[in-house]
Amino acid sequence: MSASLRVGIIGASGYVGGELFRILVNHPKVKVTIATSKQYEGEVVYRLHPNLRSFTELRFTSPKLDDITSSCDFVFTAVPHGSAVKIVPDLVKTGMKIVDMSADFRLQSTEAYEHWYHFTHPHPEMLRTTQLGIPELYRVKVRDSKLVANPGCMAITSILALAPFARSGMIDLDHIVVDSKIGSSGGGTKPSTGTHHAERYGVIRPYKPVDHRHTAEIEQEISRLSGRVVKVSMTPHAVNIVRGILCTIHTFGTDKLTTPAVWKSLRDSYQSARFVRFVKDKKGLAKYPDPKFLAGSNFCDIGFEIDERLNRLLLLSATDNLMKGAAGNAVQCMNLMAGFDETDGLLFPGLHPV
Amino acid sequence: MSASLRVGIIGASGYVGGELFRILVNHPKVKVTIATSKQYEGEVVYRLHPNLRSFTELRFTSPKLDDITSSCDFVFTAVPHGSAVKIVPDLVKTGMKIVDMSADFRLQSTEAYEHWYHFTHPHPEMLRTTQLGIPELYRVKVRDSKLVANPGCMAITSILALAPFARSGMIDLDHIVVDSKIGSSGGGTKPSTGTHHAERYGVIRPYKPVDHRHTAEIEQEISRLSGRVVKVSMTPHAVNIVRGILCTIHTFGTDKLTTPAVWKSLRDSYQSARFVRFVKDKKGLAKYPDPKFLAGSNFCDIGFEIDERLNRLLLLSATDNLMKGAAGNAVQCMNLMAGFDETDGLLFPGLHPV
Amino acid sequence: MSASLRVGIIGASGYVGGELFRILVNHPKVKVTIATSKQYEGEVVYRLHPNLRSFTELRFTSPKLDDITSSCDFVFTAVPHGSAVKIVPDLVKTGMKIVDMSADFRLQSTEAYEHWYHFTHPHPEMLRTTQLGIPELYRVKVRDSKLVANPGCMAITSILALAPFARSGMIDLDHIVVDSKIGSSGGGTKPSTGTHHAERYGVIRPYKPVDHRHTAEIEQEISRLSGRVVKVSMTPHAVNIVRGILCTIHTFGTDKLTTPAVWKSLRDSYQSARFVRFVKDKKGLAKYPDPKFLAGSNFCDIGFEIDERLNRLLLLSATDNLMKGAAGNAVQCMNLMAGFDETDGLLFPGLHPV
Amino acid sequence: MSASLRVGIIGASGYVGGELFRILVNHPKVKVTIATSKQYEGEVVYRLHPNLRSFTELRFTSPKLDDITSSCDFVFTAVPHGSAVKIVPDLVKTGMKIVDMSADFRLQSTEAYEHWYHFTHPHPEMLRTTQLGIPELYRVKVRDSKLVANPGCMAITSILALAPFARSGMIDLDHIVVDSKIGSSGGGTKPSTGTHHAERYGVIRPYKPVDHRHTAEIEQEISRLSGRVVKVSMTPHAVNIVRGILCTIHTFGTDKLTTPAVWKSLRDSYQSARFVRFVKDKKGLAKYPDPKFLAGSNFCDIGFEIDERLNRLLLLSATDNLMKGAAGNAVQCMNLMAGFDETDGLLFPGLHPV
Repeated sequence: MSASLRVGIIGASGYVGGELFRILVNHPKVKVTIATSKQYEGEVVYRLHPNLRSFTELRFTSPKLDDITSSCDFVFTAVPHGSAVKIVPDLVKTGMKIVDMSADFRLQSTEAYEHWYHFTHPHPEMLRTTQLGIPELYRVKVRDSKLVANPGCMAITSILALAPFARSGMIDLDHIVVDSKIGSSGGGTKPSTGTHHAERYGVIRPYKPVDHRHTAEIEQEISRLSGRVVKVSMTPHAVNIVRGILCTIHTFGTDKLTTPAVWKSLRDSYQSARFVRFVKDKKGLAKYPDPKFLAGSNFCDIGFEIDERLNRLLLLSATDNLMKGAAGNAVQCMNLMAGFDETDGLLFPGLHPV
Repeated sequence: MSASLRVGIIGASGYVGGELFRILVNHPKVKVTIATSKQYEGEVVYRLHPNLRSFTELRFTSPKLDDITSSCDFVFTAVPHGSAVKIVPDLVKTGMKIVDMSADFRLQSTEAYEHWYHFTHPHPEMLRTTQLGIPELYRVKVRDSKLVANPGCMAITSILALAPFARSGMIDLDHIVVDSKIGSSGGGTKPSTGTHHAERYGVIRPYKPVDHRHTAEIEQEISRLSGRVVKVSMTPHAVNIVRGILCTIHTFGTDKLTTPAVWKSLRDSYQSARFVRFVKDKKGLAKYPDPKFLAGSNFCDIGFEIDERLNRLLLLSATDNLMKGAAGNAVQCMNLMAGFDETDGLLFPGLHPV
Repeated sequence: MSASLRVGIIGASGYVGGELFRILVNHPKVKVTIATSKQYEGEVVYRLHPNLRSFTELRFTSPKLDDITSSCDFVFTAVPHGSAVKIVPDLVKTGMKIVDMSADFRLQSTEAYEHWYHFTHPHPEMLRTTQLGIPELYRVKVRDSKLVANPGCMAITSILALAPFARSGMIDLDHIVVDSKIGSSGGGTKPSTGTHHAERYGVIRPYKPVDHRHTAEIEQEISRLSGRVVKVSMTPHAVNIVRGILCTIHTFGTDKLTTPAVWKSLRDSYQSARFVRFVKDKKGLAKYPDPKFLAGSNFCDIGFEIDERLNRLLLLSATDNLMKGAAGNAVQCMNLMAGFDETDGLLFPGLHPV
Repeated sequence: MSASLRVGIIGASGYVGGELFRILVNHPKVKVTIATSKQYEGEVVYRLHPNLRSFTELRFTSPKLDDITSSCDFVFTAVPHGSAVKIVPDLVKTGMKIVDMSADFRLQSTEAYEHWYHFTHPHPEMLRTTQLGIPELYRVKVRDSKLVANPGCMAITSILALAPFARSGMIDLDHIVVDSKIGSSGGGTKPSTGTHHAERYGVIRPYKPVDHRHTAEIEQEISRLSGRVVKVSMTPHAVNIVRGILCTIHTFGTDKLTTPAVWKSLRDSYQSARFVRFVKDKKGLAKYPDPKFLAGSNFCDIGFEIDERLNRLLLLSATDNLMKGAAGNAVQCMNLMAGFDETDGLLFPGLHPV
């Protein structure tokens, strides 16, 4: 058997870093060689990620670029927005392949960064060449890329549901409402009053109900796929779970909607996509997508209903925000970029009930 | 002091019945004389409603109509849909005042019952005279009624948010999306696989995402207030709490939306409404409505944002589904019908945190 | 009607401060005149305690002692341990009556403070005169006190269950095991990694499983009641709720335990205690104490089982940690100290389900 | 590569059956050929176990014994207590190897079944030959068995923590208190009022606080290991999670307890046990066992503290009740019985956070 791919996780103390590590300890073709964290330098990794106890004795380190370069063949950068843009360009120069988990390379125009992030992007030239990491839409391009920007969790969950219909021209692109619900792990590890258990438990809390930044990614992709400028009404809510996203997407048909035509759009887009499942059943508790069934899995479950009275096409899509919404999707991109099987290390069915 | 109003709760073993009883044990002008339940006849009430232990020694009984008539001056009927219509007409004939908690008298047309409930209403003549119990919209009519139909929990939460704008003509009535999230107590006491803790915990589960019956009430009221036929896109979701509703209502302005105009619409409708609060703050965790803050209280909290990019008016409204969404609102109606102060027994501020 | 008692809450931004305020807005004989907070000076109270919106327009202030003295007839000090001891002595000198919510005056010996708090108490003379605020054990003394120390939440929940048996000599005082479970509000408002929703949700987390400080109060009281030095094995656990405590107390009989004798011990101690309920039923979900039924109520529910195989007396006691475990009990003490009815403002039955 | 072991799951619609299936779809040496359920005969398995969608197209069947015999080389019987004893003897006669998940073969004396289950065991001869499936204690015996009885979830979690000290004679065997906390999945799939989300959410509910049946297994094993009759005080509680058990075990030293001696007892018992982890850290959120970190994993995490004031040895042990507490442990037994590596299919690290 060939030697393992040596992988570094830059920014490994957060939830996305931990989830990357968790997937990779069971990945058949990979070895994690570096897990960096300035804040936790010297601590054993399992002190922060207690599920990894007995799986790794690695400690967080804070290495220089040279050390990363010599220890790794591939890196995931899981550092905050605004920090990635400072380290990724130098890593790119070493020839290493990279999946960046931040927002710093997801948008393709500097204007978009100005508008959504109030940020003057220092490397506009990189925005043209970085590939957004959605294998279901851009498998070949991801495979051939050296730098992939992993999409936002609510963005990918929405985009995968909308893409078939943006392509097929079946829906009114002027009235797309994305109402999303998300668990607390999506907000990262930093404590605050808003994430304090007594305050965060039991909420149905609107969070950035207008102008949420993931809107930018959705609009970029849906505009690209539909060939015109599309604006999307997006409103996220924090709900009382840790993992999981449900996007409820309310759209309206341009012509009379029919069930076979909706199925056809979905199948045309995802016939061969192992990580997209169509969930639409006549009975049972799992007749619609629900992140309850997805903990630890890399699926995006997509379902729909047609509301005949209003000619409304209701799309429902669910992911585990740390998996298909972050680390799982990133490993899927890595598998493509490294020439592995796309599903290596990712076929965990999820836990139920949990 | 004058004698207490003698109140009966017909169907007292459910959550709405228990909540009515809970409110009424502390109501200054009321005494609960009868709590009926066929299933639990003979059991002490606090065995099912354990919070009432030491507050009442009453037992569930299963009395005849005559006994109810002689023991009560006022009744709440909290029996299932389809059962109320069998007992309310006889109760009405006795001259007693009644608030009915079921759906059996909420809609005003037999056609609506045929369409939404597949039910041929046996008393069409009563539909014309029964008053829907929304004091904020129909205070005088409720006060003067003998039979009031208490609205559905998601219906009243949506209607109170939409009413000001249905009146003011500010929103596009052809694209109203009501995306609601609700706790498990809204589904009643009957166990099923879908409500089993291991299955229901941690869900974000679409529930009747098209054609939910509360849509009928919302459309009836918004049509009446706006003077034209309005259809509404409504999709409820079960989330991991017991009490509480958030309705996220996505609407679009007919003309350019402005913040002062939105405020004016709200104030014009609810200036004197003690149980409607406007929640819109610049900072803090409570800058938008969230049912987290409403446990046990009778408020409907309403907030909004204008999404300027899309000229979208986002309305947010929250209630405790057992209070303003059911028992609290019903007692408010009773207060009006009995000539009491509208707020008697209802000024509990809610618990925080809980 | 007589003028209201003017009450100040010193340290009103925390959960105990908020709960005191919540109770007092509906108290018939009290008016809150001051709510202090250095950190939130100038903010409206309801920004932190959103359930109080529309009940008060008061803002947090940071007044000098003189201002407190002139504005209040009674104060609750709800500041952190170690801070109370710096302000309470000066408040006492003004002649005001005080209930202190901190641990600074609960223990009666300086040695105990050295051992449990590593703290040299600056006012040993006050320890002899401060009354521990457990009305069920010390009603007359509380009534006659100027300074009352409100007990710790797990302490009072344990003490109320153990006291009858410490008195009756029925149990082996060398093998008392208190295994307690508590919600997150017991830990206060300060965010930390340990209270971060993603980390705190879903735990069964041992917390200070040996040497927890509330042990000191339990041992002090059980020793006093039994007339000998008693040590207690106490282990608390954080569980996935916000409000509530259950203490499971494993004890062993000195002689053969009998059900009537256990009942007699309980009745002898609490015959007239409105806020102690005995919960022991043959069927139903509420046959044992469970804090689920106590949200917002001031009860301590006590139940038991005899394990005949081991001659074990299992005691179960439950409270809402913010109510009988903190603010509710403190208001009960205030009622006694002010000459009000002991139950004024405290007869809320709790919410169910929630 | 050799052909897969053909495995049947008898009683596959429950949570244990589903978890067995979930593990086995990723097991490298096994193929599930039959999943039986009378109630759900004909349904696709993933309708009940939605995490298995896209992993299997198998349907529940209700085959005769002959069909099972010809389709399977190994079966798990996951049927209710009292049902297993009716089918296992016939399965045994076919020569197939079996792990039975019920309680029907865990106890070794008919007297114990009379006492704890009020049940006259029809096959006393089988009780002497059936091996209790705790590989950490009986690895060789499990390996050589044809019929293994998988232990109860709270039993194995308690036994693994107590066994080293039952052997070393370090603790007072007359005062062992097992206070356990468990999630709702431990109660199975059958809905009832007690498991209804609105009733079960947020509880700390004592459940069979004396005379719980798992006590019998603990006493049997601790008696065997210590060489004398031991009785155990066991009290379980339902808490607000779905998966997970924490056993808090309060014991007292016979002689003065020391930390090195406790470590030595643990190491002597579990030096080579891949699925027992010692969890005792100086800092961090994972310094004690907590089932929060174990979702989906097969570990039993064991920790301890010495309470010097009382010479108390506090043992803490945590499992995922569906994994090491049921299906994971059963697959571990199967691995041994089938000559596979003990860890095959079981090295999932668990999810964090979840």
